[in-house]
Amino acid sequence: MTGYKVAIVGATGMVGREYIKILEQRKFPMNDVKLLASERSTGKKVTVNGQALVVKETSPEAFKGTEIVFLAAEADISRQFSPIAAAAGAVVVDDSSAFRLDPKVPLVVPEVNAEDIKGHKGIVAGPNCSTIQLVVALHPLHRVNPIKRVIVATYQSVSGWGAAAMDELRLQARKVLDGEAFTPRIFPYQIAFNVLPEIDKAMANDYTKEEWKMSEETHKIMHASEIAFSATCVRVPVFVGHSEAVWIEFSRPMSPAEARDILSRAPGIRIVDDIAASQYPHPLAAAGRDETYVGRIREDTSLPNGLVMWIVSDNVRKGSALNGVQIAEAIIKRNWLKPGG
Amino acid sequence: MTGYKVAIVGATGMVGREYIKILEQRKFPMNDVKLLASERSTGKKVTVNGQALVVKETSPEAFKGTEIVFLAAEADISRQFSPIAAAAGAVVVDDSSAFRLDPKVPLVVPEVNAEDIKGHKGIVAGPNCSTIQLVVALHPLHRVNPIKRVIVATYQSVSGWGAAAMDELRLQARKVLDGEAFTPRIFPYQIAFNVLPEIDKAMANDYTKEEWKMSEETHKIMHASEIAFSATCVRVPVFVGHSEAVWIEFSRPMSPAEARDILSRAPGIRIVDDIAASQYPHPLAAAGRDETYVGRIREDTSLPNGLVMWIVSDNVRKGSALNGVQIAEAIIKRNWLKPGG
Repeated sequence: MTGYKVAIVGATGMVGREYIKILEQRKFPMNDVKLLASERSTGKKVTVNGQALVVKETSPEAFKGTEIVFLAAEADISRQFSPIAAAAGAVVVDDSSAFRLDPKVPLVVPEVNAEDIKGHKGIVAGPNCSTIQLVVALHPLHRVNPIKRVIVATYQSVSGWGAAAMDELRLQARKVLDGEAFTPRIFPYQIAFNVLPEIDKAMANDYTKEEWKMSEETHKIMHASEIAFSATCVRVPVFVGHSEAVWIEFSRPMSPAEARDILSRAPGIRIVDDIAASQYPHPLAAAGRDETYVGRIREDTSLPNGLVMWIVSDNVRKGSALNGVQIAEAIIKRNWLKPGG
Repeated sequence: MTGYKVAIVGATGMVGREYIKILEQRKFPMNDVKLLASERSTGKKVTVNGQALVVKETSPEAFKGTEIVFLAAEADISRQFSPIAAAAGAVVVDDSSAFRLDPKVPLVVPEVNAEDIKGHKGIVAGPNCSTIQLVVALHPLHRVNPIKRVIVATYQSVSGWGAAAMDELRLQARKVLDGEAFTPRIFPYQIAFNVLPEIDKAMANDYTKEEWKMSEETHKIMHASEIAFSATCVRVPVFVGHSEAVWIEFSRPMSPAEARDILSRAPGIRIVDDIAASQYPHPLAAAGRDETYVGRIREDTSLPNGLVMWIVSDNVRKGSALNGVQIAEAIIKRNWLKPGG
């Protein structure tokens, strides 16, 4: 296949595997693929487009000749290798939190701010999963009627933490059903048949870092630091798919019908909204899908210019790997592979 | 034991059994207990305070000579029998939704508005479970600094629907883990490892009845119809314990420290609030407990006079049976057994 020289860092992890699946599904133009991971996974074989590839250890030398790097690893790995890969001439699409709020690094959700990629310095970041689905739904409305304030309560699946958390939920659920004891490992308390209002570490103002990130990233992506913002982020015993209950205050009145009309024409969104017929988005229906699903659109009964909605998306797909591939597609389409001025 | 002649309607159901447990635990003064249920459960034996009692069918005659009736059944049963029991001279503590918004019937959470019981006409209603824990936490703050607006996103356990929903969650979870197919019966979609933003039927404005009830009941209990209110009510795969993410706008600034101080001295509340040490309420820790737990208290970063908090309580205990027993205790303590003027 003609195309680009691509490397995937963290290729054996949950998001890395999702990257491979999506690159294949979308027939991403690649004629050379390097699968990189930590030493632990070196030597494993992974099939990409019918070819069994051997996973190699991530190293500075591995990026020579590479044009596009999908980084699906922790922030410390990104801090170590992204600048090296960029210096070697590649553009790094970074799924980690390492550079998201760096003013020199574009933070991109292609449906919202693809233009920000222009002028990149070799690294383009993708936001946190809970932010992506939120801005996909907020931005089309904000363009029509500027948003003044956003309140979000999240219902985040364990896959946001990683594959080990999915194993922990599966194991704990079985132990609970069988009446057997166990010790939580990843989450501080039992997550099976429970909900925990703690994602990422605590900040000085008693918000969690996840809650803070949602606010900062939304401001940066939407170029709208004036939007007042408060989030409560909660882990729920769901394998895949994040849900969000959202209250939006606009500058002027916005009817549910107008919002439905705007969102139905917006990229990447699918509306499922008929509560009387029990039609609304839920994580099980969104898992494995590309779209951000929006439903339960109704007036905010507490405010003249407010709307309430319910936003659900596959946090591993649109929340991570799909958004990264879409960034790379935008780079190719607009011929922005080389760093800008 | 000296005491009152008591009847429990719906004695074999989940809330009815919880009533019996709580009446025993709190040594409620009763010298005669009638267990009533539908024809299906007639003849079953249930032990109360060491005595095996035979369940009888609920009928108009069953209430003769009864002084206190705990009604733990559906609204249609309450509409049928509560007026009959009241006419027979009993005071009915009604856990159903039948009379909650009837202006002639007090709707009571004893920590908030026990005084409203005075002057009852033979029926005193207890609110919906999701409302009870909310007003227990809101009211002490509202007394100090009037609340202008409340936003709530709920995380409600399946026991709010009843025992059959707990069975459905248990069954579905095992089927999912075993990779076996099943058909949802109680909820429209799979509830195991999923979340569903639908509780009770749809209203004309696309809110659900559960969301509407929370608003109406909060206004009635707190005597504060001026509080602007909007809720999104969501079912989560938890057996027992409802959680609520709440944004409160006050008339004047209210610091998290002041709120913690007020709530720590308020009846029925326990504060668990140190996010840096992963200390916060969660349903598993609240199940089987009497208190309403409050944590994650912090500034609303989107508003000058706002606070955010996280409220968790056992919806079967404080959310239903315990609140009913506390209503009866308040009636006895204040000698309000007879209807008022």
